[in-house]
Amino acid sequence: MQIEDLKRLCKLGSRTPGHPENVVTDGIEVTTEYGFQYNVLSGPLGQGVANAVGLALAEAHLAGRFNKSDAVLVDHRTYCIMGDGCAMEGISHEAASLAAHWKLNKLILIYDDNQNTIDGSTTLAFSEDISARFKAYGWNTITVNNTHEDMGEFKKAILCAHNETEKPTFIKVKTLIGKLSVKEGTSDAHHGTFKEDDANKMRQKVKWEDREPFHVFPMVYREMQIHTQDGERLEKEWYSTLNYYRSRYPQEAAEFEILLNGGLVPGWESSLPTWSKSDPVDATRGYSEKCLNHLAKVLPGLIGGSADLASSNKAYLHGYKDFSLPNSPCGRNIRYGVREHAMAAISNGLALHGSGLIPFAATFLIFSDYMKNSIRLSALSHAGVIYIFTHDSIGLGEDGPTHQPVEQLAGLRAVPRLLVFRPGDGNETAGAYRVAIANRDVPSVIALSRQKVDSNLDGTSADSVERGGYIVSDNSGQELPEIIFLSTGSELCLCEGSADTLRKEGRKVRVVSLVCWRLFDRQPIEYKESVLPRRVVKRVSVEAGSPHGWREYVGAEGLVLGVEDFGASGAYLDTFKKFGFTQENVTKLARSLVDHQSC
Amino acid sequence: MQIEDLKRLCKLGSRTPGHPENVVTDGIEVTTEYGFQYNVLSGPLGQGVANAVGLALAEAHLAGRFNKSDAVLVDHRTYCIMGDGCAMEGISHEAASLAAHWKLNKLILIYDDNQNTIDGSTTLAFSEDISARFKAYGWNTITVNNTHEDMGEFKKAILCAHNETEKPTFIKVKTLIGKLSVKEGTSDAHHGTFKEDDANKMRQKVKWEDREPFHVFPMVYREMQIHTQDGERLEKEWYSTLNYYRSRYPQEAAEFEILLNGGLVPGWESSLPTWSKSDPVDATRGYSEKCLNHLAKVLPGLIGGSADLASSNKAYLHGYKDFSLPNSPCGRNIRYGVREHAMAAISNGLALHGSGLIPFAATFLIFSDYMKNSIRLSALSHAGVIYIFTHDSIGLGEDGPTHQPVEQLAGLRAVPRLLVFRPGDGNETAGAYRVAIANRDVPSVIALSRQKVDSNLDGTSADSVERGGYIVSDNSGQELPEIIFLSTGSELCLCEGSADTLRKEGRKVRVVSLVCWRLFDRQPIEYKESVLPRRVVKRVSVEAGSPHGWREYVGAEGLVLGVEDFGASGAYLDTFKKFGFTQENVTKLARSLVDHQSC
Repeated sequence: MQIEDLKRLCKLGSRTPGHPENVVTDGIEVTTEYGFQYNVLSGPLGQGVANAVGLALAEAHLAGRFNKSDAVLVDHRTYCIMGDGCAMEGISHEAASLAAHWKLNKLILIYDDNQNTIDGSTTLAFSEDISARFKAYGWNTITVNNTHEDMGEFKKAILCAHNETEKPTFIKVKTLIGKLSVKEGTSDAHHGTFKEDDANKMRQKVKWEDREPFHVFPMVYREMQIHTQDGERLEKEWYSTLNYYRSRYPQEAAEFEILLNGGLVPGWESSLPTWSKSDPVDATRGYSEKCLNHLAKVLPGLIGGSADLASSNKAYLHGYKDFSLPNSPCGRNIRYGVREHAMAAISNGLALHGSGLIPFAATFLIFSDYMKNSIRLSALSHAGVIYIFTHDSIGLGEDGPTHQPVEQLAGLRAVPRLLVFRPGDGNETAGAYRVAIANRDVPSVIALSRQKVDSNLDGTSADSVERGGYIVSDNSGQELPEIIFLSTGSELCLCEGSADTLRKEGRKVRVVSLVCWRLFDRQPIEYKESVLPRRVVKRVSVEAGSPHGWREYVGAEGLVLGVEDFGASGAYLDTFKKFGFTQENVTKLARSLVDHQSC
Repeated sequence: MQIEDLKRLCKLGSRTPGHPENVVTDGIEVTTEYGFQYNVLSGPLGQGVANAVGLALAEAHLAGRFNKSDAVLVDHRTYCIMGDGCAMEGISHEAASLAAHWKLNKLILIYDDNQNTIDGSTTLAFSEDISARFKAYGWNTITVNNTHEDMGEFKKAILCAHNETEKPTFIKVKTLIGKLSVKEGTSDAHHGTFKEDDANKMRQKVKWEDREPFHVFPMVYREMQIHTQDGERLEKEWYSTLNYYRSRYPQEAAEFEILLNGGLVPGWESSLPTWSKSDPVDATRGYSEKCLNHLAKVLPGLIGGSADLASSNKAYLHGYKDFSLPNSPCGRNIRYGVREHAMAAISNGLALHGSGLIPFAATFLIFSDYMKNSIRLSALSHAGVIYIFTHDSIGLGEDGPTHQPVEQLAGLRAVPRLLVFRPGDGNETAGAYRVAIANRDVPSVIALSRQKVDSNLDGTSADSVERGGYIVSDNSGQELPEIIFLSTGSELCLCEGSADTLRKEGRKVRVVSLVCWRLFDRQPIEYKESVLPRRVVKRVSVEAGSPHGWREYVGAEGLVLGVEDFGASGAYLDTFKKFGFTQENVTKLARSLVDHQSC
């Protein structure tokens, strides 16, 4: 970071955007709310607190897993600065509760208690005893009243935090916002700029009148240099420890280095199971369970859990323990409780810890709504989190419309960079995992059914998933098909069934799986044309979700069968029938299109 | 509710769906997680706690506003039962903090402490001292250890809560899940069904062997009858109080009755301001501020606030106080602090209180992600909340990609029933408010710009907004236009500018505002054809958001100018330029389409 970067604050293309982004500026661990601007701007508040819990969790897990009494490889503290806004957001409450439950004693949360939010004094909307709240979660709590005149009290608090062996530490620090300015102590100092006149008066008060703007004192450079040298020395020491570790603990060292190199081992893909038509059928969440458990054996960094739905999501690594301190830090199953938002942001922390961990986070697809902003931040900050979202349509049945996702797929598909998969059978599920795991800088969503799918299909394959969309079956030979079905997930089999019926009637029918829109969109135009030839305008898409977005693939003359309203509580097949997801109806729609267009 | 309804539990079309829905079954205030099933199912957890805070807030506001010492019109308590899952969700933390801040002493939260969640014992992920946490927020806290043998302790707790004059009350009740079953005290009793054998043993234990399934004891019917009679008597008394109130306080009574009748007064629409081309330009958030403040004067039920962004969202009712107890219960501005999720669910409570309140809730469009599930529940449960989301595109500038919405409009448009408006100038903003206010059973999102729009346009009007999409300008006379621009919000002016340039070149150009997709979709096919004639295939959509969904209107041959990646921190015009939102680029795109197609 150079002085020129500071001068280009908030300018397009600078390394000092309005809010720090880990992928833009070196030294930024996570993309969150604290700004390069002279003070704090409200941002995706609370995310940083949960990210910090994720970073501390990564440290505790790896330390417990790899450190030896004679060779300590992982040993750092995680510091997090939190404003009033973060303290109010629910996500920080969720994360704070988990940090204490997990006994993350090396996590230190510094609360900047400046008594002001954007709209005015915190007394407008914040009157709780925040230290008592953190104590109730199980934190060590300290209050520091004086920082502006003397740093002694603050240093003491930090030392006390360092000595804590069981609890994370919360340090409430009373601060004065906009100190020395005419805005001192008021919310006006929270955002906006200082007037030149006011800025000059502040300079006078600290005797900086003779300094140019952006002057940096030589002392600062000197201090930085000392820290750089210290850092170099520590790095050297660490590598010599690692060398010793390699010779003394070769097996553990091998695993540790896989993680250091990003977590992937050559040939890991071959661990994924395959299915054939004769295999017993399952729900795609069942296929997912098998993939996940095969992967766990070859990928030492695979770690994750669900928001109190492990048994429903089938997202549990069998044979591995639950993470907990002090007894099983090596555990690779994480119990998040019913805290979806914190789960996602903690997963971002695990991914961005940069230690080769491959986090997965599971819940029902409907509850992706609870964690939407954190999923977005996975994509923005290159965190390769794998989101496992089961119960992915009205097909979940009895739980009814509060639990039945409709528009969630559409919303997630619109998130930039995010890969959204909705596999239709076992091999497509394996393919989704293959792409998701391989893309360590991109988050993925794998949407999975609660209900059994009809069959494993001959035409699907894990390989094909990489292209996002492909031909599953086609009886038109060298000619163009009369009609194309486009589908995903549990409705793919439904289309196959309808296609069979129509083929028996002498129709030429193609079935296309559009398992990941974004990957298909990225294919060369020739490939896309080969799958969806422009001249075939009779197309029907079938997906038990919002029709939103399907027009892109179905074209102006095609039909979109989707769910246009909220779902309904009922047995799965009754609910599917109510919304038209039966083979009969799909066949009828296709026929109407072919017949109508033939006239 | 009849016995037959219970027998049809979870069956399609029954009045007893898997989770209760206020619009399906009488007597259900809000759509939330507690099930008709014999025990609790995890649902959109925590929503009910925030809904309850909204209901209690409505009561406190109306009581303070209308009650007289000799005539009490509003006086009820709000009870809420909360499970462990609700207790873990961040939204319940946010709402609990606000309930105490607002001193909602007539709110009683009963925590069903059964020590089990779906995945097992609560000790897996929940070790905080929850009573201490609620005490820290400022709640009165009570623990009840014994309920299964003797209700005395519980009754005493309720009485104690009733006597509380300043604080909401939290009652932690230790319970035994699946009592008398083989699943007693375990998470297996949380969901699924009891085996016949086990169910029979439970019957034996309570001496019900001789009862048919679904037997209801006569005592229950008798008790219900007594309560029904009590209710009738109380209703009569209340109406006589209202009659007295009418004669004694005619002015207040008139206002109260407007609320009772749903909150709308004849002619309220005429209070909305109008703008003409010569008026000074503003950001659409500025136009919104004027609309909101004009409406506040004629709509006594208009009440709301923002999540600590009142000044940025310009969502503040000037001349009205902030709600607070005991000093200003009549205040119609609500300070939510930085708690978006609770804000939305509290707004649902305000709307579903059924007392004519018209709640608005404001934040930046990007933070709609924090409250997504509650917005969905507004739509599902017919709560006419008005969501005011400003800073609606990359046009917000310096704050950068963490603050710049891209995919949010697409995601919200996909939510069933929700009306999403993105007005382009003053009159369209007024039109959006007109439709939003009129639809008391449907929630609305009004997306507004931070930056000034270029101009108030001649061709826009508040009336036209009702149709969702309409022609703003066209120079093709009786002929069809060569090209159609489709746009919304701050980009509408940009299209007008490009259209002018092209018209000067002799082109026939139409500009269409697609201010609310859903309303346009509902228009008769003839109207849609008149706005977007099928034969005009040269179309360009211009919206500074995800392209997702635009293909529906632009057709297979049209061009979609959208934002395909995350935004960037920079001055507004620089950022707009980077993503192609300049008059030059829009004109160029249109020209390329016309020229290419002419070949």
